[in-house]
Amino acid sequence: MLTVSTALRAVFAGLCLLAAGLAAAPALAEDGYELWLRYRPATHARAVTELVAAAATPAQAAARAELLRGLAGMSGHRPPLSDTVTRTGAVIVGTAASSPVVARLRLDTADLGREGYLIRSVVVDGYAATIIAANEDIGALYGAFHFLRLLQTGQTLDDLDVLEAPKVQLRVLDHWDNLDRFVERGYAGASIWDWHKLPDWRDPRYTDYARANASVGINGAVLNNVNANALILAPMYLEKVAALADVFRPWGIRIYLSARFSAPIEIGGLQTADPLDPTVRRWWRDKADEIYRHVPDFGGFLVKANSEGQPGPQDYGRSHADGANMLAEALAAHGGVVMWRAFVYSNEQPDDRAKQAYSEFVPLDGKFRDNVLVQVKNGAIDFQPREPFHPLFGAMPRTPLMMEFQITKEYLGFATHLAYLGPLYEETLRADTRARGEGSTVAKVIDGSLHADNLPGGAPTGMAGVANIGADRNWSGSHFDQANWYAFGRLAWNPQLSSQAIAGDWVRMTFSNDSAFVRPVVDMMMASREAVVDYMTPLGLHHLMGRGHHYGPGPWIAGGPRADWTSVYYHRADEDGIGFDRSATGSDAVAQYALPVAQIFGDAERVPEKFLLWFHHLPWDHDTRSGRTLWHELVHRYTRGVDTVMRMRATWDGLKGHVDAERHAQVAAFLTIQHKEAHWWRDASIAYWQRINGLPLPPGETPPPRPLEYYESLEFPYAPGGG
Amino acid sequence: MLTVSTALRAVFAGLCLLAAGLAAAPALAEDGYELWLRYRPATHARAVTELVAAAATPAQAAARAELLRGLAGMSGHRPPLSDTVTRTGAVIVGTAASSPVVARLRLDTADLGREGYLIRSVVVDGYAATIIAANEDIGALYGAFHFLRLLQTGQTLDDLDVLEAPKVQLRVLDHWDNLDRFVERGYAGASIWDWHKLPDWRDPRYTDYARANASVGINGAVLNNVNANALILAPMYLEKVAALADVFRPWGIRIYLSARFSAPIEIGGLQTADPLDPTVRRWWRDKADEIYRHVPDFGGFLVKANSEGQPGPQDYGRSHADGANMLAEALAAHGGVVMWRAFVYSNEQPDDRAKQAYSEFVPLDGKFRDNVLVQVKNGAIDFQPREPFHPLFGAMPRTPLMMEFQITKEYLGFATHLAYLGPLYEETLRADTRARGEGSTVAKVIDGSLHADNLPGGAPTGMAGVANIGADRNWSGSHFDQANWYAFGRLAWNPQLSSQAIAGDWVRMTFSNDSAFVRPVVDMMMASREAVVDYMTPLGLHHLMGRGHHYGPGPWIAGGPRADWTSVYYHRADEDGIGFDRSATGSDAVAQYALPVAQIFGDAERVPEKFLLWFHHLPWDHDTRSGRTLWHELVHRYTRGVDTVMRMRATWDGLKGHVDAERHAQVAAFLTIQHKEAHWWRDASIAYWQRINGLPLPPGETPPPRPLEYYESLEFPYAPGGG
Repeated sequence: MLTVSTALRAVFAGLCLLAAGLAAAPALAEDGYELWLRYRPATHARAVTELVAAAATPAQAAARAELLRGLAGMSGHRPPLSDTVTRTGAVIVGTAASSPVVARLRLDTADLGREGYLIRSVVVDGYAATIIAANEDIGALYGAFHFLRLLQTGQTLDDLDVLEAPKVQLRVLDHWDNLDRFVERGYAGASIWDWHKLPDWRDPRYTDYARANASVGINGAVLNNVNANALILAPMYLEKVAALADVFRPWGIRIYLSARFSAPIEIGGLQTADPLDPTVRRWWRDKADEIYRHVPDFGGFLVKANSEGQPGPQDYGRSHADGANMLAEALAAHGGVVMWRAFVYSNEQPDDRAKQAYSEFVPLDGKFRDNVLVQVKNGAIDFQPREPFHPLFGAMPRTPLMMEFQITKEYLGFATHLAYLGPLYEETLRADTRARGEGSTVAKVIDGSLHADNLPGGAPTGMAGVANIGADRNWSGSHFDQANWYAFGRLAWNPQLSSQAIAGDWVRMTFSNDSAFVRPVVDMMMASREAVVDYMTPLGLHHLMGRGHHYGPGPWIAGGPRADWTSVYYHRADEDGIGFDRSATGSDAVAQYALPVAQIFGDAERVPEKFLLWFHHLPWDHDTRSGRTLWHELVHRYTRGVDTVMRMRATWDGLKGHVDAERHAQVAAFLTIQHKEAHWWRDASIAYWQRINGLPLPPGETPPPRPLEYYESLEFPYAPGGG
Repeated sequence: MLTVSTALRAVFAGLCLLAAGLAAAPALAEDGYELWLRYRPATHARAVTELVAAAATPAQAAARAELLRGLAGMSGHRPPLSDTVTRTGAVIVGTAASSPVVARLRLDTADLGREGYLIRSVVVDGYAATIIAANEDIGALYGAFHFLRLLQTGQTLDDLDVLEAPKVQLRVLDHWDNLDRFVERGYAGASIWDWHKLPDWRDPRYTDYARANASVGINGAVLNNVNANALILAPMYLEKVAALADVFRPWGIRIYLSARFSAPIEIGGLQTADPLDPTVRRWWRDKADEIYRHVPDFGGFLVKANSEGQPGPQDYGRSHADGANMLAEALAAHGGVVMWRAFVYSNEQPDDRAKQAYSEFVPLDGKFRDNVLVQVKNGAIDFQPREPFHPLFGAMPRTPLMMEFQITKEYLGFATHLAYLGPLYEETLRADTRARGEGSTVAKVIDGSLHADNLPGGAPTGMAGVANIGADRNWSGSHFDQANWYAFGRLAWNPQLSSQAIAGDWVRMTFSNDSAFVRPVVDMMMASREAVVDYMTPLGLHHLMGRGHHYGPGPWIAGGPRADWTSVYYHRADEDGIGFDRSATGSDAVAQYALPVAQIFGDAERVPEKFLLWFHHLPWDHDTRSGRTLWHELVHRYTRGVDTVMRMRATWDGLKGHVDAERHAQVAAFLTIQHKEAHWWRDASIAYWQRINGLPLPPGETPPPRPLEYYESLEFPYAPGGG
């Protein structure tokens, strides 16, 4: 314990940073490992003078340890622990059960539920103090992180009156991690799950992973790829899973596993996986019992069935509901849930893949067991830079629908493109399904409020994000991709939050509270996703990426096993026009939306221009709202996207002094790559459209520097994450 | 720059460590990233008062930066730079060309060559100083690292008189890294080469890699797997390779590539890769020219041909010499070399695989171009825990033979078994081939001295190590595996060094100079490889590991595509006895050794017992030197191996206070795994031998806790690095 005086300590802390920076650069380098939990010196942290916090349970110990770590980092001293409040500036954390001080205050915690908390400025025994109180340990932990965030973002501790409870119950990361540590659609290195060394070696990184998740309220993790390997359910792996569950438990994270539907055959030795076969049902019940012996708080199964070649109940002439309900029955006794993915498409060529999930699932509404959630991607195609909201939202009033966002940037430039996805998530969550009149937002579908009267009592709610986490030192492949993990967690806790406010918090916690830095960086982030849309797929275009790996432009992609794995299927460009007619004159996918929405989307004059070519096939000379022809508007937007990235580079270059050199350099290098690749996208796309439409470029636009054949010739057999 | 006084600074540095430890634990944690270049406070570092070092070239800048980093870390202050010596305690580094001070001293540097250096206590302008001088910048860099090592290992700077020059020219790491970042036989995570982000993003880790290598004198890196992908030679990858070469150049590291022999077909569009075909020869010449345009100091090619399914000259009825010479011709104009691997075995079943490389290569002695080295594994099978030296050493007097050691522990327990390989390397290097009478050690073959009169003038010499490096934070998968990288480098510089002395240096630099720590840890390291031999393959047994991945015991492995990929092929155990008869009564592999060696190895009474079953098939009741029967001796050694690991655990547990908690915990956890797996090896092996010989255990030995069937049933489809 340090004994230097408080006055000396401040000077000394500053000097330390200087000296340490000189003496041991590599160990102190800002390499991003600490994420948004850096706990660097913060203005108001020194107001905390003591900590009243129990540590009788692992969760209590976690909250106390995090507060000590955070306060020590931010104030330069570790606050003393106390059983009672003995001075002004105390912080009390706990539940009525864990803390006599909390019990004595007789707080009204009725609205907090199991995971909520309040943070309040109070007076205890005559001393001004801050209380972080909850009904359960996990709520107190979440409150502790919220309290630390207040300090991290430069807020004072005066007159605090915070009351928070999550609006969504299951806030889950889906890891598409294979047992060989390959991460499908992963751009941050190998899987962080070092299966070979588990269960004996519990990498401290697992704890840091859990801390980071808990800090934003994420309370579940699906450890393995939805394209699942049945072996994860074998005893050898369950031992490993149990070790991870032990690490995660104090941080409120429950483990889920992707279950391969044919596991009874592959590891069970059965002849069938028919969900109505009694031996199959028994096998899954026994398997569930076995899992819960290893992991008593196991969360449940995520299932991708009858999609992209995965086995499923339809292999036996059964429905998705039959399959999901069988698994749900096996889990029900233990309190587990089934998250059954709606991202299905059959092996037959559909007339419009966008329609398929709706067609298959709407008839099943009301047929699922109470502990089943249907997990629906934000849009009907596949995690594009922009999609209209999925028509299933609002269309299954008697079924809990769980959102599936992609955090990893499969279609948004991998790790090197700066694209803050908060606005994408927000755009979807705020989309109005009109299912029950105006204000029937997707967020209200997800949090269960829109159809509360139709859903079974206590129906689960959930939001999943496909993780962007790997063994890279900075976790997410780039510093700015950490923001997408962060934003997902915050929005899963409260789908009504503003993505801009979240970005502000993240920038302050991750980089700096200096407003000369925060403002331009938040602006840059907020514009970044639109830039990707512009330079990749403007005006509602979609799915034009390289085949398989989805890296780089591939609007020319055609042929191969299925039409809906090509680009030409989606853009339908010819000499006369471009776009997928999903209006009544085309596939009529618009009819899957509620009527007021369908009327807007189905009308080329009323549809938001950002969805124009998603829903309509239009002539190249179609007039857009800017007054430009469709062709000129397209080119304009490609160029605008590139220009935005150029400005992002300039913004970042101008912030050099505001951020550590190491992170500045990496972000700058990645922005350079992004700029180059944005140009590549623009140039290749324009070259391709020109071959099709034979039109000249608008005046002032630079022609692609290379012939189309060059762009078509590029191959990337080892692009990461593929696919 | 700090302005606090020197006196204050010392107190302050100590306090800083304390404070930083509290405030920002994760960033400061000892996670192994810094390797042996930690530069923590060192007793004698404060004797350095100023630094006289030019930085006019990148290599000079590298040396100066490393000295500043090291001295700042070890002394707590960054020494001032000066152009001349102005005080006692100056350190001067450079060449006569780069430094007027060095030039003025007129040192005799004739024996230093291009890479050597001297470090000497001198008086300059009346001041006691230390000079680090060389003929070339790279020598000065090596000298700087040597100087830092003196301080790191607690040595004084008094009366220094060091003169060092490498005994081996090419000191190379072979990375078995695929373009998708999978590392064959890698146990430290994904490849550190992030090909997708190259050439634009130059990860700072590449520089740290180069620094670590330069610090031990490694001057080359083969970037890609010997099971090569031709694409590495395509323009897109050559740009990436060039970026790495730029990073490595200041640190004296040249890049080599594994060349796929059929590349002219696969990426050149030719119909053949026949080495005598003029279009093929032209293709390789053009390719070499192209490579050198990208990488002017490119080192050359490593080739695995006609081995384990790789293409090669024999596919066209040509010899290894034909193939190697074609490539060598293409490289010769640029100063490149070909490292042609002798690890070949044909697709036909050999009578004894141990004999094959010798049979194929000895007839080619003298037929290779001057810039070809034949790269020979330390033993004739495949990187076993123990092998007798390869019979090719000493048998090709007119060909430069390059050593290939394996640093990654494919057959020695992967990353979780503590096995210091220094003694393995030393055992091989000191083995006496008797090719030119006593003292004809393998080391003398490698350094070219044994056959200097037969070799062409200026013939290259070399030593390669198959790297154990990956993206894991600690580089090598475990802290102690770093020692194997380190030891390889030191022995490649000087094959006569003692592995124990190297271990001492490494422990001091990596952990602590405290002799209460250094001594037991060095002892533990020195015993560790023998422990692995004992619990895996005692008494000359070999190649009994799990099929493919080589993880865990598999003495029962039989069947499959080739006999020499099974265990039964190698142990030949039956009711009557065990061992591979390679004496004159058997395969007569002993005849490949020089006569005095062959006579010893071929005689079951004279052969060193550690090689007993390598060369002889003996009855279970054969008397061994201990007086025990062969069976009892075998069991005794298995148990001894397990006991040694148990003692290693106890030793390490007792050192808890001497080392940071984070590294202590990981090593302890890995030792626990090793202990468990050592037991597994012993138990499974004994259970298997007992089924074959039906013999009871020696008195006092614990029987295997499970039946043989259990051990046989274990499967590890996702064991890392396989295979």
